[in-house]
Amino acid sequence: MRVSYQELFDALLRPLSKTGLDGDRARLCARLIADASRDGVASHGLNLFPRLMTMIRAGVVDVDARPVRVSASGALERWDGQRGIGTLNAYESMDAAIALARVHGIGCVALANTHHWMRGGTYGWQAAEAGVIGLCWTNTLPNLPPWGATAPRVGNNPLVIAVPRPLNGAHVVLDMAMSQFSYGALASYRLRGEALPVPGGFDTSGELTTDPAAIEASHRPLPIGFWKGSGLALMLDMMAALLSGGRATHEIPADPEQESGLSQVFIAADVTRLDAVGVTSGTVDAILEDLQMRYPGERTLATRRQNLEQGIPVEPAIFGLVCRL
Amino acid sequence: MRVSYQELFDALLRPLSKTGLDGDRARLCARLIADASRDGVASHGLNLFPRLMTMIRAGVVDVDARPVRVSASGALERWDGQRGIGTLNAYESMDAAIALARVHGIGCVALANTHHWMRGGTYGWQAAEAGVIGLCWTNTLPNLPPWGATAPRVGNNPLVIAVPRPLNGAHVVLDMAMSQFSYGALASYRLRGEALPVPGGFDTSGELTTDPAAIEASHRPLPIGFWKGSGLALMLDMMAALLSGGRATHEIPADPEQESGLSQVFIAADVTRLDAVGVTSGTVDAILEDLQMRYPGERTLATRRQNLEQGIPVEPAIFGLVCRL
Repeated sequence: MRVSYQELFDALLRPLSKTGLDGDRARLCARLIADASRDGVASHGLNLFPRLMTMIRAGVVDVDARPVRVSASGALERWDGQRGIGTLNAYESMDAAIALARVHGIGCVALANTHHWMRGGTYGWQAAEAGVIGLCWTNTLPNLPPWGATAPRVGNNPLVIAVPRPLNGAHVVLDMAMSQFSYGALASYRLRGEALPVPGGFDTSGELTTDPAAIEASHRPLPIGFWKGSGLALMLDMMAALLSGGRATHEIPADPEQESGLSQVFIAADVTRLDAVGVTSGTVDAILEDLQMRYPGERTLATRRQNLEQGIPVEPAIFGLVCRL
Repeated sequence: MRVSYQELFDALLRPLSKTGLDGDRARLCARLIADASRDGVASHGLNLFPRLMTMIRAGVVDVDARPVRVSASGALERWDGQRGIGTLNAYESMDAAIALARVHGIGCVALANTHHWMRGGTYGWQAAEAGVIGLCWTNTLPNLPPWGATAPRVGNNPLVIAVPRPLNGAHVVLDMAMSQFSYGALASYRLRGEALPVPGGFDTSGELTTDPAAIEASHRPLPIGFWKGSGLALMLDMMAALLSGGRATHEIPADPEQESGLSQVFIAADVTRLDAVGVTSGTVDAILEDLQMRYPGERTLATRRQNLEQGIPVEPAIFGLVCRL
């Protein structure tokens, strides 16, 4: 089922407005979520919206909260998300990091006390559209067993890196979690009756498997690169908690509907401050030309164009649910 | 075979001094290389030293070159390594990033035109010893086929992240390349007659294998997390080339003895500028306590202590060679 961007946007805006969320912020929130579905990432767009509404209604997410800067030292700032809406907090934090980069060359905003940022790539595209390099990550609830353990004690801690291509807007945007496959991806393979292309976790008897259902049952997805992704997830959590002064993964409730008090880091770097022609110099184009492979984010613009023309694919049950909210 | 730290240091210093390298810089260079072996990373310490000497004698590495700052914008600086010694250029760059972090909270030095930094962890420990968070990476010659390709067109681009623990000096330091196993690790498994614990690459017929010799033969090691590590390696290269204004992997000669003109990024963040008790607040200790697993860098201090007591293990053939240089 496909709907127009406007229909999707309106369907998201209506329930957000009813919560009492300020008009401009409700529109921005609806836009960011609709954009994720428009770009082919419905799993972190429309499909996560019902949970956001549940968390708002349960009082876990506070629609009146605005992020505030709690301390600052030049190009490094610490913000408190005050348990507000995760997408809005993250967007505002990346905006602040970009503003710092305009002044200091590089800027870093560490955000505590926030909620799920939904599509991480959103904030990478935001930086790239502003013409700066963006680097951001979030911690999460414990959902990934560190290498060598069976219980989920690290987060999959998505990491986003964006490099702008101002001349054509075809920015390079990597948006990756530290697990080899997300639970959403596992479910998709299972529903299609397909095996994973590479081992994605352990089954309940502790053997590596390409059977998505076996990993859903064991709750033991693999970190990328085994011990390496496990270590990287740990470091991202540690830096996020330390820089923001907020919670680490082990302090975040393991129930997704209670996933609260996340810590995030947003870094922006403005190469044009060093070298006016830097970001238009062809460096990135030459790298991609040599690569001869699809690059991170390459499909996004094509998907976006197609979905704006043909309508945005929505899961009928979820879209129906949102229309009744 | 084990030698004392002083013996190792002297053996490294002698040939460096003969090259005409300035005395203080020769001592620093010998110390950084000896430290890598002392900490159990001889593969990126003593064992790489003969190649450094070959490159100095061939005029690829210029011992008289000093890194210079070529442009700056507040907390972001661009340096030119002028084809000098990689370890010294990297050390000086991290020092400059730390100095920027003391002033601006966060600092970034992007270094072009340098050589192999040997043990990447060195610059992580350097940041952590200074009480700041360190994040740095380097590009390399093309040594890793991107996911889906058979020819090495990305680098394994080591990434280092360090989080300080000023109270006990047991810093958390991750030092990882984007390949699942380095060629050094593959050789070690082969010499011990062991299979890899997980698939480490493809054999010449394109099948995933745990046979180290088969991967050495195919030159097709695996990126960590398959497509994910491949994408991350690409982004690290792109950011390094763009920020430094230097070479990307595809512009770096594929012969290790000609591996020249590398680009590197050094970022430091000083949390104490935001929160005096931040880095001593127990945040990191609590994360590691919850982890219940070995953390990145944990073995380093124990290995260091043991090697300082019992002598530093050296490959007799390599140590002999260095003593005759």
